[in-house]
Amino acid sequence: MKRAARRSKRRKPHFRRRTKAGASPGTVVAHPDAPRPVIRVIAYSATEYVEQEVADLSKLPEYLRRFPVTWINVDGLGDTQVIQQIGELFGIHALALEDVVNAHQRAKVDDYEDQLFIVARMMHNFGSFETEQLSIFLGERYLLTFQERQGDCLDPVRERIRKSSGKIRRMKSDYLAYAMVDAVIDSYFPLAEHVGDDLDRLEDEMTSHYDPGLAHGIHIVRNELMLLRRTLRPHREAVNQLVRDDHPLISDDTRVFLRDCYDHTVQLIDLMEAYRETCVDLRDFHISLVSQRMNEIMKVLTLIATIFMPLSFITGLYGMNFNDKLPGNMPELNIPYAYVGVLVLMLSVALGLLLYFRRKRWIGDSAPPDPHDQADDDR
Amino acid sequence: MKRAARRSKRRKPHFRRRTKAGASPGTVVAHPDAPRPVIRVIAYSATEYVEQEVADLSKLPEYLRRFPVTWINVDGLGDTQVIQQIGELFGIHALALEDVVNAHQRAKVDDYEDQLFIVARMMHNFGSFETEQLSIFLGERYLLTFQERQGDCLDPVRERIRKSSGKIRRMKSDYLAYAMVDAVIDSYFPLAEHVGDDLDRLEDEMTSHYDPGLAHGIHIVRNELMLLRRTLRPHREAVNQLVRDDHPLISDDTRVFLRDCYDHTVQLIDLMEAYRETCVDLRDFHISLVSQRMNEIMKVLTLIATIFMPLSFITGLYGMNFNDKLPGNMPELNIPYAYVGVLVLMLSVALGLLLYFRRKRWIGDSAPPDPHDQADDDR
Amino acid sequence: MKRAARRSKRRKPHFRRRTKAGASPGTVVAHPDAPRPVIRVIAYSATEYVEQEVADLSKLPEYLRRFPVTWINVDGLGDTQVIQQIGELFGIHALALEDVVNAHQRAKVDDYEDQLFIVARMMHNFGSFETEQLSIFLGERYLLTFQERQGDCLDPVRERIRKSSGKIRRMKSDYLAYAMVDAVIDSYFPLAEHVGDDLDRLEDEMTSHYDPGLAHGIHIVRNELMLLRRTLRPHREAVNQLVRDDHPLISDDTRVFLRDCYDHTVQLIDLMEAYRETCVDLRDFHISLVSQRMNEIMKVLTLIATIFMPLSFITGLYGMNFNDKLPGNMPELNIPYAYVGVLVLMLSVALGLLLYFRRKRWIGDSAPPDPHDQADDDR
Amino acid sequence: MKRAARRSKRRKPHFRRRTKAGASPGTVVAHPDAPRPVIRVIAYSATEYVEQEVADLSKLPEYLRRFPVTWINVDGLGDTQVIQQIGELFGIHALALEDVVNAHQRAKVDDYEDQLFIVARMMHNFGSFETEQLSIFLGERYLLTFQERQGDCLDPVRERIRKSSGKIRRMKSDYLAYAMVDAVIDSYFPLAEHVGDDLDRLEDEMTSHYDPGLAHGIHIVRNELMLLRRTLRPHREAVNQLVRDDHPLISDDTRVFLRDCYDHTVQLIDLMEAYRETCVDLRDFHISLVSQRMNEIMKVLTLIATIFMPLSFITGLYGMNFNDKLPGNMPELNIPYAYVGVLVLMLSVALGLLLYFRRKRWIGDSAPPDPHDQADDDR
Amino acid sequence: MKRAARRSKRRKPHFRRRTKAGASPGTVVAHPDAPRPVIRVIAYSATEYVEQEVADLSKLPEYLRRFPVTWINVDGLGDTQVIQQIGELFGIHALALEDVVNAHQRAKVDDYEDQLFIVARMMHNFGSFETEQLSIFLGERYLLTFQERQGDCLDPVRERIRKSSGKIRRMKSDYLAYAMVDAVIDSYFPLAEHVGDDLDRLEDEMTSHYDPGLAHGIHIVRNELMLLRRTLRPHREAVNQLVRDDHPLISDDTRVFLRDCYDHTVQLIDLMEAYRETCVDLRDFHISLVSQRMNEIMKVLTLIATIFMPLSFITGLYGMNFNDKLPGNMPELNIPYAYVGVLVLMLSVALGLLLYFRRKRWIGDSAPPDPHDQADDDR
Repeated sequence: MKRAARRSKRRKPHFRRRTKAGASPGTVVAHPDAPRPVIRVIAYSATEYVEQEVADLSKLPEYLRRFPVTWINVDGLGDTQVIQQIGELFGIHALALEDVVNAHQRAKVDDYEDQLFIVARMMHNFGSFETEQLSIFLGERYLLTFQERQGDCLDPVRERIRKSSGKIRRMKSDYLAYAMVDAVIDSYFPLAEHVGDDLDRLEDEMTSHYDPGLAHGIHIVRNELMLLRRTLRPHREAVNQLVRDDHPLISDDTRVFLRDCYDHTVQLIDLMEAYRETCVDLRDFHISLVSQRMNEIMKVLTLIATIFMPLSFITGLYGMNFNDKLPGNMPELNIPYAYVGVLVLMLSVALGLLLYFRRKRWIGDSAPPDPHDQADDDR
Repeated sequence: MKRAARRSKRRKPHFRRRTKAGASPGTVVAHPDAPRPVIRVIAYSATEYVEQEVADLSKLPEYLRRFPVTWINVDGLGDTQVIQQIGELFGIHALALEDVVNAHQRAKVDDYEDQLFIVARMMHNFGSFETEQLSIFLGERYLLTFQERQGDCLDPVRERIRKSSGKIRRMKSDYLAYAMVDAVIDSYFPLAEHVGDDLDRLEDEMTSHYDPGLAHGIHIVRNELMLLRRTLRPHREAVNQLVRDDHPLISDDTRVFLRDCYDHTVQLIDLMEAYRETCVDLRDFHISLVSQRMNEIMKVLTLIATIFMPLSFITGLYGMNFNDKLPGNMPELNIPYAYVGVLVLMLSVALGLLLYFRRKRWIGDSAPPDPHDQADDDR
Repeated sequence: MKRAARRSKRRKPHFRRRTKAGASPGTVVAHPDAPRPVIRVIAYSATEYVEQEVADLSKLPEYLRRFPVTWINVDGLGDTQVIQQIGELFGIHALALEDVVNAHQRAKVDDYEDQLFIVARMMHNFGSFETEQLSIFLGERYLLTFQERQGDCLDPVRERIRKSSGKIRRMKSDYLAYAMVDAVIDSYFPLAEHVGDDLDRLEDEMTSHYDPGLAHGIHIVRNELMLLRRTLRPHREAVNQLVRDDHPLISDDTRVFLRDCYDHTVQLIDLMEAYRETCVDLRDFHISLVSQRMNEIMKVLTLIATIFMPLSFITGLYGMNFNDKLPGNMPELNIPYAYVGVLVLMLSVALGLLLYFRRKRWIGDSAPPDPHDQADDDR
Repeated sequence: MKRAARRSKRRKPHFRRRTKAGASPGTVVAHPDAPRPVIRVIAYSATEYVEQEVADLSKLPEYLRRFPVTWINVDGLGDTQVIQQIGELFGIHALALEDVVNAHQRAKVDDYEDQLFIVARMMHNFGSFETEQLSIFLGERYLLTFQERQGDCLDPVRERIRKSSGKIRRMKSDYLAYAMVDAVIDSYFPLAEHVGDDLDRLEDEMTSHYDPGLAHGIHIVRNELMLLRRTLRPHREAVNQLVRDDHPLISDDTRVFLRDCYDHTVQLIDLMEAYRETCVDLRDFHISLVSQRMNEIMKVLTLIATIFMPLSFITGLYGMNFNDKLPGNMPELNIPYAYVGVLVLMLSVALGLLLYFRRKRWIGDSAPPDPHDQADDDR
Repeated sequence: MKRAARRSKRRKPHFRRRTKAGASPGTVVAHPDAPRPVIRVIAYSATEYVEQEVADLSKLPEYLRRFPVTWINVDGLGDTQVIQQIGELFGIHALALEDVVNAHQRAKVDDYEDQLFIVARMMHNFGSFETEQLSIFLGERYLLTFQERQGDCLDPVRERIRKSSGKIRRMKSDYLAYAMVDAVIDSYFPLAEHVGDDLDRLEDEMTSHYDPGLAHGIHIVRNELMLLRRTLRPHREAVNQLVRDDHPLISDDTRVFLRDCYDHTVQLIDLMEAYRETCVDLRDFHISLVSQRMNEIMKVLTLIATIFMPLSFITGLYGMNFNDKLPGNMPELNIPYAYVGVLVLMLSVALGLLLYFRRKRWIGDSAPPDPHDQADDDR
């Protein structure tokens, strides 16, 4: 139950109104509790590589000049001024900047001619179902990313840049953007596996023994699935838009990789749909298990009542106090061995009823010889 | 229950037939109970700003001449003549004017070449589920709006015009139209939050204790959700039409903002769908809780009956009045300590049955050691 | 029940095979029971107006020559010859004529170059769910309509022509066709209201008291809704086709009106969908009410059985006839005030069980303090 | 039950793998059990008409030369060689020929440039749900059809050719193809009527009395509907393809007729969908009837138990054998008329409980004054 | 149950993350447990034919030069180096090669200009539900296939090449690719048959006798169906893409065959959908059978309780120990033949109740004269 409570807290879907109700659209107001931004630059060419934390924004243009690709990563959205300065520096549209700060957007791609604004949502901690918004601005020579807080799923990308593994250092910023989106999508696979394991365990428990708590378990998994699907679905659309639209910032080479990433997204969503169907199926199965259990319980009750009610009636009959001295009043009481006779009568009533129930298959069919197994072995 | 009754009153969907059955289409007949119109003009340029209540319609053209943007707002639709005069003044098509007066339209955008006719529905009071029709006519230099009664969700827009905050005063009438539609969409977010809170409370109650009233609660939330979805869905279509269609009245600048507004609408509808799924899930969960409760009840009944029926049979047996003087008739009655023997017999029958039930897991599995918690902690 | 029976008769969907199985397509065979045709002409220009019953078909061409718009209405399809003569006169395709006589078509628009063939279905009597086919042939200067029998929902249109109200007399035949389709769509609104009222009444009854008959009520409303939706849906398609297709017979002016009519149709279908959802919701609600009622019943049974079975066992115990003269055989019977002791014992067993049930919330939770109301009042 | 068994045999959907697993595609292998082919030619022009059974394939080309339309019908697919000879004669693609022999295809239209290959499925016997494949090859001057066995639904077409009724003799082979497809679609209407009647009967029985067998009845009808829908749906696609695609073999004149045929197909599928919905509705209705019946049964049980358990307890109480000679031990037994007092007590307990149940509406609401009827009569 | 356990193991959907979390996309890392690759070449022209196992990759180019079609089949993916060498030899894109090694792809077609990359999934063993990935690279003069392990469903294709049966040896590599995809699709038909048989058996058992285990059976079949559908659906898309897209590698001749293959795929998926519907239907049927069984059980209990409770009450009444010497205290006990009177009373109570139950149709309607049979026979 503890787990249920913990999880259902996370169920709350991420969404909130505009920065401040009634504010002009495009107003950027940092959330008071958000951590202050930390800016980190990774700039590289096929041969050179620099990684540095940057405090002074005025140094950024130099990186952009010197390197073919500069990745500026901003962790934390807690300083309105800094965010707005960056926005001005890179010529970001006010609405896009507002979406960065209101980190409750669905995944999407917005095209601002000289810039692509990509929103993705990544899973923050392994095993948790919280998501964090990753806002990506893709320009000719730079990639600007905003995250809600430190810690992300992009370390493999950083590692590949550092080690110059694969072709990442030889490609332009569009490939870096692809690498990030791909890393985000990849971060969902362990979660999907997790949900799949939960479903397997639920199914195993369901077939092994009756447990009324399973309804709750199914309910929790359904909630998790719903959250995953809701978060993932817009990614499919967004990645597809990147593959399909002929934007000059995205080269054909990168497009092939994005197509691969799209395949992964489709595979994930496909899997989510399959899990959802499994959930519905498990729910149906559980419902029928519950009714069968009910049937079992009622059968026991009915068996007991049906056998003992007639017997009790007989005992009651001979417990009546009619004056057996008078004629016609319970002469049986005074017949020798009548008691034995009554006992035999009761025994045969009980046996007769048991036979009747067995004939109606009420007894003994809780563990019938499974015809499936046989049919299966014959093959 | 009180709340249920109150709410179900509001469920009635807004719709009504044409002005008067059989009237010519385009006939404008004010509803007799509707409040009389109050006309208020807000006219502005980047530098100037005028806000005034207007009684004499003939003054309107002057505003249109003097200011690049004039917003004429009509509160109340109770005077056929005034409405028709305004209609003539702005060259409004008879059908559009009829739609203004029959304030039961779905959100839509109708294109009348030199005018765009936009219908939106706004939520009237916070926490209520009543909607009010906002009819917007967008022209080159003016914005004409009709509302059913005073009070709306447009105060933030007015405030922005007054304070010239944001870019609203520097933009044309299309941006004002956008600002209004955006304000309307924004007004749905608190309602969505409200429904989300209701769902959370229902779920919490469901997991904490059994309450038969929850079925009613789910029913109410489903009703609310259905109403919200029905009202919102046409907005998506309408806003999308504004974004997509290349109407000369809407500038590319404003289109970017409308795209943002469209994103919000999609996000809202997405949320409604998620809530609906949660509702279905909660309903399933509740149904299985109810059946499990039934199982519990039946188990108690069956336990009691199964234990006491055999015992009562035994007591009945020895309550029979067979003449124990005769041979073979209940000799047990005359054996010393037979009573104690019978008591012991009954005790062992009872204990045997209890053991049997425990083995069949009928007893003690209402609070089993939750395997989930464990599985979860291991991770 | 009476009403249910009456209605379920009407449920039968309208459809039938071709005129005569195996006849050539385009064979026109009047149904033997159909009423004989009565032909009525309404011809008008902006200034003139003639309305007349016509027996001699040869007079029709004159009307067409003299007036810009001539509406020939045929009530009753019972005379093959007359129908075929009209068909020849107006150059109607054999298949269209067959569809006129087999009055079981879905609403549709067929384009025969110089003619548009429009089929609509109208509701015959107020409050009934029977439909009648209205076949409309729209030509340059005429409108030819066929109806199954006299009486229709077109009187408002006739009235407008007679009084020259609105612009109908100044428009051409396409506007007249629009006016008819619009009148047909309008005739569905009272029915929709009717269904909505039924749903409201069902919901009110459901929340006020338990009534097993409500399942039947929901079933009837679902049937009605299904019929309405099936009849309405093709109208949407058909009207949309009229709006969208660029047919020379339909002017742009009329198209604006048709778009309005299309809006009405969409609104109606939208409403039907909402009602359908309400039906599903009510069904779910009813099912959970029934199970809760079952729970209640079982709880009462279990309470009674659980209390009285142990008590009866005790009385049975002291009703046994063991010979209390022998040692160890029911010495209690001979203890003074033992009876009182047993009574006290039984009372405490009963009270103990009642307390236990109260603790398990089996007693007293049929009318719990509604937490919703409170939550609601706090707001 | 007999009927159920008989029908469920027919449920098996028609499909089978390729001729012989692993054979080359396009391999034509006649099924060993298939009847041997019988070839029948109907050739006609507007004036001439010949109908003949043909054994020698070499005579066919002559018919094709002499008549504008030649219909070669092959009944029975049991002779590989004959089929292949015909295939060569008419230049049929190997894959098409394979589809002819593997008579388990869905309805479809394949375009082989100089030929259209149309597959339709017809209902074999009236009232049965078995289908037979009709393969149609439409060429410029001929129509070649293959059927699985003798007996079909095409007799009306033959009759029309013989009697030269309608325009069939004046039209070309495309019209003949249309006439056949139309006849096939027509053959489904009696089946649809049949299913509709079954549904009506099920509904009537459901509302008139409780019958547990109805679940089985619904199950059977659902199976039939599913089969019908599965068979019909591809026809819609196929006919639509014929209407839409601009194939030179199909004239505009015939296209108008095909559009009519398409309308019929849509109408049928529409009907099937409506029936399916009715099925779901009936199932829901039946489920709630079953639960209500359960409620009724439990109510009777609870009534009886609740009344007689307290009474039996009282009788048990005064059946105890406490020694009433001792003080405090059942003094009631020795009070005159105490018996009458106890009887009165029991009567009032019983009456009190009955009143309580009546107040809780447990008694007497199985046949309540139907509020619907009243509401209905008021209108 | 054994079978259930065995099968549910197979349910786990095939999917895994990228080669190594965080690796560069396009990294090829063989799975450590995968079998080592075995390369087999089948090269042929219309007249020549060579089949050989090849260890030295450098010999491959010669085959490609000499023969118009060379099929290189790689069984086992356990050697990174070999796979990469082959990749280089045939100019395979790194992403495609990664997909080969991560054998958990959905069926798809990727277009790499001079190459088509086709992924299909085949069923490994007859009767099992495990799938194996078949990766096909189609080039101008070669076909390169990768399989996870030895053993496949392509033997019929090999046989046709060897025996030069059909046109396979006269066609180019595109036809060979078609033949493979077709063989894969064909391999699903026995599985579909298998599932169909399971459904038939479930239905037969359901109608013949009550078996609570059927819920489990339905659950298993639903799982299998879901897996089949999930695997098959992408094939439809992929094959359709091959048919539709105008790729230069695929000739029009082959396209006709692919269209045939597409028909088969659609037929299969259609069948899966039908089976799924049958599953849902069977589940509904089973649920209503379970509730009806419950009704039956409760009816028996209620009958017994309703008959014996009043009777036991009567016996209890006359078992009371009121002192019958005092006036008004159970004078009946001393009336001669009162016992017989009571017996008669009890008999009439029992009979009365039985009559009442029969009138309410509680008795004797478990095997009613089936009205369906009659209705059916009349036809």
